[in-house]
Amino acid sequence: MRIALLGGTGDLGEGLALRWAFHTNHDVVIGSRDPDDAHAAADEYADIVTERGRDVKITGFENGMAAARADVVVLAVPPYHVADTVESVADGLASDDVVVTPAAGMQRDEAGFHAHPPTAGSVTALVADAAPEGVPVVGAFHSLSAGRLADLDADLGIDALLVGDDGRAKDVVAGLIADVDGLRALDAGGLANAAEVESLTPLLINLSRENDDLADLGVSFR
Amino acid sequence: MRIALLGGTGDLGEGLALRWAFHTNHDVVIGSRDPDDAHAAADEYADIVTERGRDVKITGFENGMAAARADVVVLAVPPYHVADTVESVADGLASDDVVVTPAAGMQRDEAGFHAHPPTAGSVTALVADAAPEGVPVVGAFHSLSAGRLADLDADLGIDALLVGDDGRAKDVVAGLIADVDGLRALDAGGLANAAEVESLTPLLINLSRENDDLADLGVSFR
Repeated sequence: MRIALLGGTGDLGEGLALRWAFHTNHDVVIGSRDPDDAHAAADEYADIVTERGRDVKITGFENGMAAARADVVVLAVPPYHVADTVESVADGLASDDVVVTPAAGMQRDEAGFHAHPPTAGSVTALVADAAPEGVPVVGAFHSLSAGRLADLDADLGIDALLVGDDGRAKDVVAGLIADVDGLRALDAGGLANAAEVESLTPLLINLSRENDDLADLGVSFR
Repeated sequence: MRIALLGGTGDLGEGLALRWAFHTNHDVVIGSRDPDDAHAAADEYADIVTERGRDVKITGFENGMAAARADVVVLAVPPYHVADTVESVADGLASDDVVVTPAAGMQRDEAGFHAHPPTAGSVTALVADAAPEGVPVVGAFHSLSAGRLADLDADLGIDALLVGDDGRAKDVVAGLIADVDGLRALDAGGLANAAEVESLTPLLINLSRENDDLADLGVSFR
């Protein structure tokens, strides 16, 4: 499987890239608006994984080229960029590809972070509206800490939730989750259930802010 | 400590009553609109715990009398009854009492359950508005399964989140949580953060609906 991480130079992109490169044999492709940034990040991530004795190659491309080459396209960009990003790479997406969105809309006040979904109801629904007809969209990775993923010494032992209306696409993403040691994929239902999953992101930030011993927090349903 | 469970004849009231009666020496008081129902439930719960070799006494009263006798008053009633319930017992509440609200506003559609907070922003905020001036309100227990609590053979190993603006009140509730084997209290911040905590309730229901092996689900942040 070839996985493109658009916005892959950011924290979540780095974390997912390192984990897939380290734990699996999938091809990892870093996408960025600037291809030089993508190359540099790809080389940096490959070095980190290679130093641990894994012989991996991570490539970097401009977002559109990265998406066109991939079977699974992860929109690891801020929530206010997801719609633009998926539209900018639409020509490279086909119905047998899978688009994955990990972003959550949030607002911040003195008390903490708060769910602030777009008018579509959730970022996942926004991406589904923006994606080309027939290209399946899955919401996933909202409860994963970028820092914990990027620390390859860190045990995970946590869950990654999935929402979406396309069963095949969810199976593909569930497989990519289960391929990472310590991650369990959990189906949270259809796209209409995305807002409750996306609300985990501000909740996890608030819990980390309020509890000094809970940095890089994840969640396990049990 | 004396804990009143208003609406204590319901599922969550039963679960919390059994756990506090079984694991702690706190006085458990069951409240109901009908005092006969409260007596009957109190006797039933006491029998369950007594059969396990614990010598406990659980009492039952009409909601207002139960609240007046208690240090901590848990509103174990449906979300559309919380404001009425807290107003109906207001005379028995003082500033050294603590009101606890576990309810979450939800709507249901074909896909699942969805967060549907009241216009106050959260049920916890609604209760804080309805409570007498100076009586502290804590939101808690939104992610606990009533069935799992009521099964005293069931291991917990899960978290219970707290929100509220009164530090002393949160400490009291955190203590009552930690008194139950297998429950950990986690501070999720101020009352303004309640909506994200209350969103866990529909999320947990959706996960149980979508995953046959995940009944009576709880959550652990790690």
